[in-house]
Parts: sequence; structure tokens; C-alpha cells
Amino acid sequence: VEAGFHHPILYSYFRSSCSWRVRIALALKGIDYETVPINLIKDGGQQFSKDFQALNPMKQVPALKIDGITIHQSLAIIEYLEETRPTPRLLPQDPKKRASVRMISDLIAGGIQPLQNLSVLKQVGEEFQLTWAQNAIISGFNALEQILQSTAGTYCVGDEVSCPQVFLYYRFKVDCTLYPTISSINKRLLVLEAFQVTHPCRQPDTPTELRA
Amino acid sequence: VEAGFHHPILYSYFRSSCSWRVRIALALKGIDYETVPINLIKDGGQQFSKDFQALNPMKQVPALKIDGITIHQSLAIIEYLEETRPTPRLLPQDPKKRASVRMISDLIAGGIQPLQNLSVLKQVGEEFQLTWAQNAIISGFNALEQILQSTAGTYCVGDEVSCPQVFLYYRFKVDCTLYPTISSINKRLLVLEAFQVTHPCRQPDTPTELRA
Repeated sequence: VEAGFHHPILYSYFRSSCSWRVRIALALKGIDYETVPINLIKDGGQQFSKDFQALNPMKQVPALKIDGITIHQSLAIIEYLEETRPTPRLLPQDPKKRASVRMISDLIAGGIQPLQNLSVLKQVGEEFQLTWAQNAIISGFNALEQILQSTAGTYCVGDEVSCPQVFLYYRFKVDCTLYPTISSINKRLLVLEAFQVTHPCRQPDTPTELRA
Repeated sequence: VEAGFHHPILYSYFRSSCSWRVRIALALKGIDYETVPINLIKDGGQQFSKDFQALNPMKQVPALKIDGITIHQSLAIIEYLEETRPTPRLLPQDPKKRASVRMISDLIAGGIQPLQNLSVLKQVGEEFQLTWAQNAIISGFNALEQILQSTAGTYCVGDEVSCPQVFLYYRFKVDCTLYPTISSINKRLLVLEAFQVTHPCRQPDTPTELRA
């Protein structure tokens, strides 16, 4: 019997924001899972191993083994969890609000993150990495801040926590005071238990010096 | 009464593959709509106009005005159409197959396209654009080809047309013979009416010399 039939296995890297997004969804839904850490920088990148490539040909985390299948792409994983474990819900009931959640999720997962993942930054070259990543975040955040002004309540869309999307970008030193709506939603999310227990500084593979 | 309440308005650019994806979805579902062309290269880029930025702060096509709201991000638009106009369906009924469709869609819309859109290529600089775009496509296609080998029937996932994802990348001169599964699915899709009528060479804003 495949392990995936027993309980889900999440292939995750503590610092990957896409992995964190899935960890939050699993935590919000109260789904038990096992973490298999994939270290993106050790051994030249464990995501390039033959075994992992067979699991996810995109050589990226996260990947989730669940119900006998393996799903990658964080938003596809979250949609699957929502369809098969509907409560508590991660998407609002109203189709128009669902559209807002997906629009915001796609903006972040498709419009910001792909431009600043490890393999892209390598291609850009060390000298330009910071500016490059900042440009991606700034242009995405400018748009997001404007969109949230019409969709947000306590959280991104209304007052319910939905697909978790907003993350800190401390790494790239973007001035968060420019984005008051994003920052305040982020603050409200970070105190929730599902965000606390799944935090990058509290993962099985978090190095000791980064633990908190 | 807002125009969006009457019939949908699609803000589209003939050559944008994300716009094309939404045009295909609208055509497959038989939804009448009006096209408002946004020329991404004319006038320094019409997506940067004040009017368009108010509509989509990400300054990207497509955007769809429908049912009194404006949605951007092509996959969010398609999910909304699927939820509000369920037949004919663009997603399979089985949650595991739905996960495959979304995984493939996210791979393309999040893993390949963002790296080769206009604003990113501009940042990369003219000298490196072709190699950069090719790298993004090749690494995405290598993964996609492998994934499709376990999901594809006539089309990407089984034998039903799903969220349309596979596009030609002629522009960047990637050798398609390296991707037999992708190429053959693409061929089978391109002969379908919904793909024909929405083709970049047959749009209201297609320049005469590119029409076919």
C-alpha cells in the first residue's frame, strides 16, 4: 500500500513560500500530514535528485502525496483539498468572492513568485538579483494594494480567511509601509494558529539558527 | 446600467496567450462577448493608460467585465465561468482529474508564461531575451511532456477538452519535435472550432499582415 493512502506526505522546504501556503491550508483544515524536507540549496539542490524529479518534473516544492496521487503547484493542491475536504472552507461560497480570492492568489502565485524563485534568480545573476526581485514584488504589491482596497475586510476578501496568499518579503527588503492594507492583513494572519505552527521558523527542516 | 450587466466585455490583445486562453473558454461555453482590444505595444502600451489601470492594476490582459464585476488573471476568469456557466464543463467531474487539469494549468500560467511576458523580457534586455524565453519554455515543457504522459488521452487530461493550456511557442523557436505529446495534443486542439475562431490571427485587433 502506498504511503499516500494512509496519510498525506508533504514535500516541503521551510523557507519556500509556496510550501508555506500549502502548510497553512493543511493546518486550517486540520489535516495531519508528514513532512519530507527537500533542501533547495543542499547537495546542489535536492529537488534535482532523480527520485524527486520523478515525483515532480518541475523540480519544485511543494508536492503533496494524498489519496494515492501526487499533486504539485500550490494552488492546485489547495483547490483539491477544498474539493475533497470542504470544511472549514478556504474559499467563500459566493462565486464573485471566489473569483476575487482566485484573482488575488493567481496574482501572487503567478505574477510575483515565479519571478523571484531560486532558479530564476540564478539566471538573473547575483549582481542584479535584489533589484530584480524587488521590481517583481513592488509591481505586484502596487496592484495588490489597490485590489485589496475593494475586496478586503479583516482578511484579503471579506472577513474570512481564504486561500492564504499574503507573505512577508523581508528577504528582499521591500518597504512594507508603502502597502498599509497588505501589511495589516498580513499582521492579522500571522497571529492565527494555522500560520504560527506552519511558519518557516518552526519547521522540521528549519536550521537551528533560524528557529523561533 | 453598467455594460458588464448586459454582456461580457473582454479586454484582450490578439497575441496574448492568456487572452487567447480566456477567448477559448468563452467560445467553448458559447458565451457571447464584446472585445475591447488593448494594444500592448502601441502608444507605449495601452495597458498603462489610467483607464485600464483602474480596471486592472496589474496592467495586464486579459480582464473580463461580467455580471457586474471585473475579473483578471486568466485562470481565475475560467474558474468563474465554470462555476457560473457550468455546461459544457471545462473541468472534469472527478476531483483527482480536476487536480491534474489545475496542476497543468498552473504549470503553464504560473511556471512558464510569467517568465516570458513583455514586461519581464524588457527587463532582461534585448540581447538575452530569446535565450531567456527559451529557457523558461524548455524547462516548463520538459516537465509538462513528462506529466502529460501519465494524464493525457486525446487531450491534456483524458479525452475531454479541459481548461485550455497548451499553446504554440513558435515565436521563440523552440524545437517542438522534442515534445511529441505536447505537439500532438496541440494539433488536435487547434482544429477545434473554439480554437479556430479565437485564434490570434483572427481577432478584431489582428493586424492585416498577420491575418489568416
